[in-house]
Order: sequence, then C-alpha cells, then structure tokens
Amino acid sequence: MTAVSPNRTVPDLLDINGDRLWSSLMELAQVGSYEDSETGLVGVNRQSLTDADAEGRNLLVGWMESAGLDVCIDEMGTIFGRREGLDPTLRPVVAGSHIDSVGTAGAFDGCLGVLGALEIVRSLNDQGMRTRRPLVIAAWTEEEGVRFGTDMLGSAVAAGRLTLDYAYDLVDAEGLRFGDELDRIGFKGTQPVVLEPPHAYVECHIEQGPVLLRDDVAIGIVTGVQSISWQKVILHGRAAHAGTTPTELRVDAGLAAAQIVVKVREMVDSGSYGRLRATVGHIATSPGLPSVVPDRAELTVDLRNPDDEQMAAAERDFAAFLDTLPELQPCSGLKVATKRMAKTSHVPFDHRVQDVIAKAAADLGHQPVTLMSGAGHDAQEMAAIAPTAMVFVRGQHDGISHNPREYSTPDDCAAGITVLANTLLRLSDESADESHDELTEPLTDETDDV
Amino acid sequence: MTAVSPNRTVPDLLDINGDRLWSSLMELAQVGSYEDSETGLVGVNRQSLTDADAEGRNLLVGWMESAGLDVCIDEMGTIFGRREGLDPTLRPVVAGSHIDSVGTAGAFDGCLGVLGALEIVRSLNDQGMRTRRPLVIAAWTEEEGVRFGTDMLGSAVAAGRLTLDYAYDLVDAEGLRFGDELDRIGFKGTQPVVLEPPHAYVECHIEQGPVLLRDDVAIGIVTGVQSISWQKVILHGRAAHAGTTPTELRVDAGLAAAQIVVKVREMVDSGSYGRLRATVGHIATSPGLPSVVPDRAELTVDLRNPDDEQMAAAERDFAAFLDTLPELQPCSGLKVATKRMAKTSHVPFDHRVQDVIAKAAADLGHQPVTLMSGAGHDAQEMAAIAPTAMVFVRGQHDGISHNPREYSTPDDCAAGITVLANTLLRLSDESADESHDELTEPLTDETDDV
Repeated sequence: MTAVSPNRTVPDLLDINGDRLWSSLMELAQVGSYEDSETGLVGVNRQSLTDADAEGRNLLVGWMESAGLDVCIDEMGTIFGRREGLDPTLRPVVAGSHIDSVGTAGAFDGCLGVLGALEIVRSLNDQGMRTRRPLVIAAWTEEEGVRFGTDMLGSAVAAGRLTLDYAYDLVDAEGLRFGDELDRIGFKGTQPVVLEPPHAYVECHIEQGPVLLRDDVAIGIVTGVQSISWQKVILHGRAAHAGTTPTELRVDAGLAAAQIVVKVREMVDSGSYGRLRATVGHIATSPGLPSVVPDRAELTVDLRNPDDEQMAAAERDFAAFLDTLPELQPCSGLKVATKRMAKTSHVPFDHRVQDVIAKAAADLGHQPVTLMSGAGHDAQEMAAIAPTAMVFVRGQHDGISHNPREYSTPDDCAAGITVLANTLLRLSDESADESHDELTEPLTDETDDV
Repeated sequence: MTAVSPNRTVPDLLDINGDRLWSSLMELAQVGSYEDSETGLVGVNRQSLTDADAEGRNLLVGWMESAGLDVCIDEMGTIFGRREGLDPTLRPVVAGSHIDSVGTAGAFDGCLGVLGALEIVRSLNDQGMRTRRPLVIAAWTEEEGVRFGTDMLGSAVAAGRLTLDYAYDLVDAEGLRFGDELDRIGFKGTQPVVLEPPHAYVECHIEQGPVLLRDDVAIGIVTGVQSISWQKVILHGRAAHAGTTPTELRVDAGLAAAQIVVKVREMVDSGSYGRLRATVGHIATSPGLPSVVPDRAELTVDLRNPDDEQMAAAERDFAAFLDTLPELQPCSGLKVATKRMAKTSHVPFDHRVQDVIAKAAADLGHQPVTLMSGAGHDAQEMAAIAPTAMVFVRGQHDGISHNPREYSTPDDCAAGITVLANTLLRLSDESADESHDELTEPLTDETDDV
C-alpha cells in the first residue's frame, strides 16, 4: 500500500459486506423503535441522551470494540473509534455521522454514516488490510437538535464554534440539563472535546431529498451546505366578528400571513435570488374560530441559498416586504414582528476531497452527480477545521426523511459505503506533502512525513 | 289605551329606568365571571347548561317572579315570563334573546335583550300601565352553540326547524348529552316546545360590529340576517424537507391554503358578489415544523351575503377555484376536500315591524340607520313563524364582541331598550285586523278579536 503523487497507485478496491452493513442498520433500528400509528410502519425514536440513545450507544461501542477499535468518549459524549495506521504519527482520516434521531425517524439518517464506517473497518479486518494513516469513526452527540434545541451540537463544540458550557447548560422541554443527562446515561467522557484537526473528514449520509432518485443515480458528491435562515414572523391584527365587520375596517392577521406565504414563493419563482428555496412550514392563527377575524398569526420562514450574497438579497427584500405589509391591509393597525431562529452561512466543501470521492466513485463504475446539501450535517462543522466533503446515498419515496417511510435500498447503502471506503483508503494513503489548500491551518507537524 | 288604524293613538312614551337596567346587567355579569389574563378585564363564561348558566337562570327567574311575571319553562329549557294583557285571548308580543354566553364573553351579548325586556315590564309596573296584548319575555337556551355545536338551538326547536330529539342527543366536548345536562340543572320544563306563533317578535341586541359607532348613531334597525356559509377546507400535499426538496417537486399544502386566503379576499374586493364578506378565521398546517413542507393544511372559510343569489354565485366560483388549485402547484398531487359546517339563507325581517321600530325611534328623537345583521340571532328562527325584527345598540371598541372588551355605554343600552319598549307598546296595542302580510300562517283565530 503505497501512495505516490501524481502517478498514484491506488490500493486495491475494497469490497465491503453489504449484508452485514444492512444487518447492523436493522439491528440498531430496533433500539428506540415504535409502531407509527399513521403509516403502520416501525419508526425510530432515539433522541439524544435518552435511555434508547444510551442503549444504541452501548450497542455501537460493543461493535467497535469487537472490530478491534480503540474507543474514546469525549466530554460531549461523542464516541470515537480509532483503527491505528501504519504511521500512528500521521493525522487520522475521520469518517462519521450520528446515531441520535428525531422523534419520528427511520433507520438510515446518520446511522448509515456511522455503521458504514464500522463496516469499512470490519472489511479491512476481513481482508487483512492496513492503512497508512489512522482511521477514526466518529458518532457525534445530538446532531438532530430536537431534544436540546441546537443541532450539530457535538461537532460544533468539537470544532470550537460552541463552548462546552453552552452545551452543558442547554435544557430539554422538561427542564433536564444536557450535562446532567450526559452524566446520567454514562457517556460524559474525559477526552478533551476540542478536536485536533484531522487529515480529512468524510461523511456518508442519505440525501433526504429527491434529486438522486429523479436523476436515477445511487451516489451524489456534496459540494457544500447551503446557507440557512430561519425566522418566525408574528402578526398582530384586530379580532373582529366575521359577519358584522366591514372588510374595509379589518386588520386580518391571517390574511397578512397568507400574503407572506404567497410572496416568498413568488420570490423563489422570480429567479432573482439564484437557487433560493423558501418554505413556510408552520402557520397558525388565533383565536382560530370560523367566525372571528384572526387577531394574531404566526408563521415560520425557512430560506435556503447556496450563495451567501443572494441569500442576503433575499433576506433584505423579504424584510422590505414585511415593512410594506401593513400598507397592503385595508385598514391601519397591523403589527409585524420577526424573531431570528437560526442563521448559518454557506459552507463550501473541500474541492480536493470531492475529487477523491469522484475518482473513487468513477473507479467503481458510478456516474455520480454533484449537489448541494439542503440540510445541515456534522460535516459542516468539521469543514471549519479539516478538508471535508460528503457522499450522498439515494433515498426512495421522494427521499422522504425524518419519517418511518425513510428508505434507501440495501444496494444503494452498500454502493455509498463502498465509495466511502475507497475514498477513505485514498485519503488515508496520502502523505503530508500533498496540497491542502483548503485547510484552515497548515499541517506543519506533518512535514517530516513522506 | 286604544289602537285605531290608520289614525293610531299611540300610548304615552314609556320611560325606562336606565340605572336599574345597567345594575341588572352588571349583576348577571358576575355569574360565571372570570379575570381575563390577556386584558386584565373581567369576562363572562356562562356556557349553556353549566352550573353558571343554572345560577344565571335562577337569578333571572327570581327577577321575573318579583316583577309579577308568570314563568314557564319549555322542554328545551327556554324561560318564558308572561305579563297578561287586557285581552288574554290575543296572541302575545314576544321580546327576548339569550343569557348563555361563549367562553370569553362580555356582559351584553344576549343579556341586553332579556334584561331589557325585563326592565320594560318593571317600568310598566312602576307606571301602572297595562297593554292590550300579553307581553312575553323569552330567554332562549343555547343560542351561542359553543357547548353543543348548534347555535340558536332553543329557538330553532321552538320554531320547528330542529326536533327536540336532535337537540337532546347533542353532546359537548366531554361527551355530556344536552338532554341529561338540561335535566341536571333542573331546567327541563314541561311546556310543549313548539311555540304557538306570537303576534310579533322583537329582539334588542348589541350590534357586535362597528357600523353604528362609525356612523355615530346609538340605534340601528335590522333588516334581516344575511346568508351564512361555513366550510372547512382540508388540503393534502406531500411532506418534504425544506432544504433538500426542489421547488418544482413540492406539493405544499400550506401554500395552497395561503392561495385560498388571498383568493377569497380578492373575491370580496372584486365587487362581483355584491356585499360579500369572507373570513378565514382558522389556518393550521401539519406537521408545523420550520423545515418541513406541510403535508396537510386546514382552514375555515366563512362567507356571508345579504343576497342569496350572489351568495350562490360566490360559493360556485369558490368551488371552481378549489377545483383549479391543484393545477396552481408546481407538481401534481394536491388533494382538496371540503366539509360543510353550516349554511343558512338570507332571512329578511318583517317590513311592518321594522316600520314600527322606526316610528318609535323617531318619536324618541333618534335617526336610526338600517343595517343587515352579520351574525345569527334567535330572531332569525322566530322570523319563520311570526313578524319579526331587531333593534341594534351601538358597541364601543369597534363593536368588539365575544370578548371581555365588549362594551356598550349605559346611555346607549337605555336608548335601545327605550326604543324596544315603545315598539312593544305599539305592537301590543294592535288589533287582529291590522295586516300581517309576512306571517307564514294567517291569524285566523284572531278574526273575532277587534
């Protein structure tokens, strides 16, 4: 196993065991499973730091140890499993994702990336292969953010964007503290949480969208995570009797909400903001009676854009529209307030890591498409400290996710993990003199490593 | 006290005791009172057949008996208090309204009509006046319909539109049966519920709207109740991830809901449907998360029109719009269902009774406006069996009602009841040979009554 650039000798293509991967995915999906009353399907509810999460974590740690990995838990409860490299002084290649879930999940979101990396280690073991750099599997804590309200929590603290104190003091809906719950389930580790930047980070994840299915390809290479803006808009009008109040005297908060929903779709359709996506997921009126003009309406506006400047333009124009909204009513008195819920900039992934994925995929006979991730992932946190990219795997049923109907076929899961495997092999075979333009800090400690 | 048409000799104008009226209104408002957390005001929650309603009913019956009225309770629990006329064989003139309330009420809705009629009897007693026809005060059961789901329930059964069995079998949100609750509070009376058509029915009520306040007049004469159509629209789209799903693949139930809200206002503004009013009071999306395209939305559409033909045109065109709604989406799959919640035709009030109110008001120095009632009232049920009209009293705060801020001044309440008093005096002085074109059945049993 040698690596010489530019005439690289790639390692033999690693085959993984798709059946074993599938079997592990299905076994983990039993932990926290429930029967979904709407679909009749078995779903997964394994929210972070619950008993179910602890059971899932213990299953994973057992599997890691059986695969000969050196398991460490950091102060955020993130689980790392290290397979030593031929040169232990080289920075490792990290592959990971998460095993916590939303309340109504399927078997694949996050788990594919973690159990896929585990399957790669098992296959390396089966085939007696060793890599030059260490390989590390990471299972990040609280990626979903549904229990404690901040997503990508473990990776964000590891990357230094959030502090440990911030994370520990988060509370769930019942007032339970993150730090206490981490302690309670026995996963408050001692490894310092701020991660030493790895050589590279690669995450395999289900797409959670319909693009790969529509384009009839199993594999996607992710170019980055788009900018995300969440805000809540609260409208105060004036309650009035539906039968007795002339239209010209109405300040209808529900109508104003509807005007916003229609407007944001018009903004998307206008093409003026590049690849803007806009979603109003939540609309509610109060008092919510058929015969009362709503005095209050609330809605959420989710804007996404792969381009930060076009995102800024969309946000600016949307704010300007909100300013004019009272004038669109027949009668003065509408009050408009906004509350910022979340805002992240576009995170571009490392071009060279994308190239390595592309070559691995091509060698395996795939013709992957490149696409932007619409959803947030731990990879966007790792991108701040290491060359990072992602592999997406096609989902069925329009790519539905966060739902028991979430499904990727065994073949597609195996295809994605095989691409990940061969990507990791190439990256782990790299010496320190190969260029890493995108690294946030030069890998000066690796200059003696040839 | 004689009545000769066309040179009618009207009785002396009756003065009522405005202070006593106000005092009774305020005393009844204590029953079922609560402190409203939002406004800090004292509100009223005296929903039908609750303990609070029973307490209010007993207070009213006590007052009626003290005023010398003969009190009867019918099988629906409606309370009648009869003051005998000089000629007991003549059909009575009935004045009434209701004392049940919504959950967040003020002191005036319904109560003004009942306690106003009581004040008229008290004033007649004070002044030693007798009327030719009997006077009857009616306090109808479950006008609001908030507890058992059907409004104008007592008057609708009295008028023969609904059956006693239908009413008795209605259940509230806790599954309690109307008939059982009526029994429990001790107001299941024995008087047969189908009412012998009275000579006339007159109801004084707060306007519950802003027209009189805007026009700076205390009194309105109600020409009828407009047609009311309530329907629920249920939209089924497809849940999708806000970040990953291209716009052209979305079936957004929330967007479709917003398009409906905007459309119904456009229909109103178009002027194509006469005096159409349209209200969407309830909008809700599911699952209601910021990052999920709603797969379900629900809204209520309340249409009102004083003209049945224009109402039919509006309903037809709205249904046609709903049929085109799936085509307005970027992707097929939107399902639209509607559920009829309520539908009543325009109820015109009796012209001659309106004229009597107008003359009484003019003699008292008022310049009342005529207006259509936007809300439903017991009077619309009585209009099916007797010449009927209503007196409206100006409300403050844009005429807000069903809210603790509901308020009419003591002077305006007294003005409305004084107009009612003088209207009742004139009607009760009428002989049987005066024309009643609008009666649904000829008053043949009164032909010998001159």
